[in-house]
Amino acid sequence: MRKRVYLAGPEVFLRNAESVFRAKREICQRYGFRGVSPLESHLDSEPLPQKELGWRISRSNEFCMRSCDLVIANLTPFRSPSADPGTAYELGFMRALGKPVLGYTNVCGTLRERTAQFFPEGLRARRPGKGLEDPEGLLVEDFDLIDNLMLDGAVLSSGFPLIVIEAPPGEKFSCLAGFEQCVQQAARALLGLDAPRPAAVAAE
Amino acid sequence: MRKRVYLAGPEVFLRNAESVFRAKREICQRYGFRGVSPLESHLDSEPLPQKELGWRISRSNEFCMRSCDLVIANLTPFRSPSADPGTAYELGFMRALGKPVLGYTNVCGTLRERTAQFFPEGLRARRPGKGLEDPEGLLVEDFDLIDNLMLDGAVLSSGFPLIVIEAPPGEKFSCLAGFEQCVQQAARALLGLDAPRPAAVAAE
Repeated sequence: MRKRVYLAGPEVFLRNAESVFRAKREICQRYGFRGVSPLESHLDSEPLPQKELGWRISRSNEFCMRSCDLVIANLTPFRSPSADPGTAYELGFMRALGKPVLGYTNVCGTLRERTAQFFPEGLRARRPGKGLEDPEGLLVEDFDLIDNLMLDGAVLSSGFPLIVIEAPPGEKFSCLAGFEQCVQQAARALLGLDAPRPAAVAAE
Repeated sequence: MRKRVYLAGPEVFLRNAESVFRAKREICQRYGFRGVSPLESHLDSEPLPQKELGWRISRSNEFCMRSCDLVIANLTPFRSPSADPGTAYELGFMRALGKPVLGYTNVCGTLRERTAQFFPEGLRARRPGKGLEDPEGLLVEDFDLIDNLMLDGAVLSSGFPLIVIEAPPGEKFSCLAGFEQCVQQAARALLGLDAPRPAAVAAE
């Protein structure tokens, strides 16, 4: 039975979400895993009020995560200097279950650098030695990490580096080079494999 | 032994973080809980390189969460239309451990409404019947929920409503009215209490 990889990430919001997940599942398969997309779990639900439907998808995704062996999260910044909060939630969920969490982002820079770019008016110094704050007076994390320390920390504590790729223009959420690096690392750590299997062997 | 409440939220980034957490702990105590702030766990660490320090705080917060019985999360939007991703991570972490998760936000509106406000150029319709998307072409969740469905869903699945308060100006992250409502709900559900204990009884 192949190990199941939960495919967390904001690509669920892309117009071509289905094809991005298909490509992710194909990469997983080449390395000996079974990729599981959050879209799979709630395609056939009956008509429901919107709130009830949202809640049902949440329960279905949680059920799905419990059935998976690891998570690979797309931590590309989403409408902010940081990762999508739904993806962050899922990273924490899998981490608490003791399952390996891996992650990648398609945008370079530390959280501090991206937060500085996010505010056109820039950051300012808090009292000397007390770091930088944003225009609302909120401290900007400055640990030389990629994102909030809980996100970086989860991946590091799982024994993996957080993969950073600068995606080609127009592929910010859909570029899969960083994703494939994660799958490769997972295969090495969890399956003892260094390279994708030949196609004939990989087919299920 | 009092039940321990993990105090998740971006107020860790406020200038007066210590005093906000002190006020939260006092509210917890009045209702028979012990509030535990993420700041408590890493105050005395020796000098370390920044990355190592960030990672250590993450491990310390995870250890702290495992020692707590429930979480009350401040889900006020943070540098985006959505909650702080560190807080979202912690919500998922506690939920996966089967511990009750409660949450509040100090900003009104659904995720769709706040996302529309976030982009000055507004949202646009995807193909008919396919919902709204942001200027980057990413679908905007429209489930009549407060935030990403994983966050709302976690609180609802724990048996609590997500509390929404419109904070007074200048108190967006520090207003504690919604927090107290969460503590009240937790006391009712977990301690069978309907009102704060008299001060004399509440003292530890």
